[in-house]
Amino acid sequence: DDATAFNGEKHAIISNKGPLNKRLTVLLYQMLEQKGIATHFVSDGKDDRHMLVRRSEIIPLEVVVRNYIAGSLQKRTGLVEGRKLKQPLVEFYYKDDDLGDPLLTQDHIRELDLASNDELVKLKRQALRLNEVMLPFWANCGIQLVDFKVEFGRLFPDKKNIVLADEISPDTCRLWDVNTGEKLDKDRFRFDLGDLETGYQKVLKAAEDALCS
Amino acid sequence: DDATAFNGEKHAIISNKGPLNKRLTVLLYQMLEQKGIATHFVSDGKDDRHMLVRRSEIIPLEVVVRNYIAGSLQKRTGLVEGRKLKQPLVEFYYKDDDLGDPLLTQDHIRELDLASNDELVKLKRQALRLNEVMLPFWANCGIQLVDFKVEFGRLFPDKKNIVLADEISPDTCRLWDVNTGEKLDKDRFRFDLGDLETGYQKVLKAAEDALCS
Repeated sequence: DDATAFNGEKHAIISNKGPLNKRLTVLLYQMLEQKGIATHFVSDGKDDRHMLVRRSEIIPLEVVVRNYIAGSLQKRTGLVEGRKLKQPLVEFYYKDDDLGDPLLTQDHIRELDLASNDELVKLKRQALRLNEVMLPFWANCGIQLVDFKVEFGRLFPDKKNIVLADEISPDTCRLWDVNTGEKLDKDRFRFDLGDLETGYQKVLKAAEDALCS
Repeated sequence: DDATAFNGEKHAIISNKGPLNKRLTVLLYQMLEQKGIATHFVSDGKDDRHMLVRRSEIIPLEVVVRNYIAGSLQKRTGLVEGRKLKQPLVEFYYKDDDLGDPLLTQDHIRELDLASNDELVKLKRQALRLNEVMLPFWANCGIQLVDFKVEFGRLFPDKKNIVLADEISPDTCRLWDVNTGEKLDKDRFRFDLGDLETGYQKVLKAAEDALCS
């Protein structure tokens, strides 16, 4: 239920956020597995705040895929929010709160020994493949997938296979209503754009309708 | 003579800094041209604050080459200042004061149309080649070349050839005394480590001695 933004500077408890995100993550992981995307997902958990996953070692990189200009990419480039990118773009951020989750180049990642060259190629390929599945899925829900952050894990015991891990939710995606442009994701909390739970409910409802129809 | 740091937040006038940097830049460009590095340099200028250069269109990227951990790379990675990198590392920063000269990945550069893929390959190759010439030169001066920032320009009229441009000075390089570890560069100004001119004088003297011996 915790909502945090700006590297923890803004914090709130939003009751029911956990279950909403968990329900959406389960739905998405089931859909993704059907589409051939490898994830750590095993099954829905014992209650509305847990899910059963395969054991994996999380790679300490936040892998961001972007389709439109928004957020830190807007600040970094000065380009207009909402502009479509020439092609989807992958960024790697160092998963380190003390350092403020900084952007890393592939050379930085090599220097820090966070992932091998082979793994970096795989991470980029798997992230773009995930985007190719997510884009039409969300479009079918009437939602524009602006960007998203995912994490990947090395599956135990041999840590050779890399799978999608952690959550996929409005905490980790920018999702805009295709018709109204309304922001349905964590930017509601970051920038006080409206009740967070209402946005998250809309996203979950749209995904449920799309998957059950 | 202007000294600026932290994206212009800190500013001072240091008399004689201009001539010191110009003198060193001329010496270095002459040495580099002899070693086969293409620069925009033509000849020493009409006075101690000018030099004659070929007309070029500056590529709006600050190209940083690093041999040791320092500065923003220390902050970004959390690694210890002064640690030798496994291999020299090239970074590109967006030359845009309003945006705070942010780090860019190659994908960002493509999206912003700042340089072509071919040009990026050339920039990286020329920057590393420059480093290969500068490292032994400064070592011979008793100075450790920690990192440096350079700019490149597309030569008129056809803008097909890319050459080293702008200055090379203690404003744009981190230079440490090999024996004492004393910082002889702009970090003296950034962090109030001592009289800036004294450091710059030492660097110029060392380069003059190396080139005239």
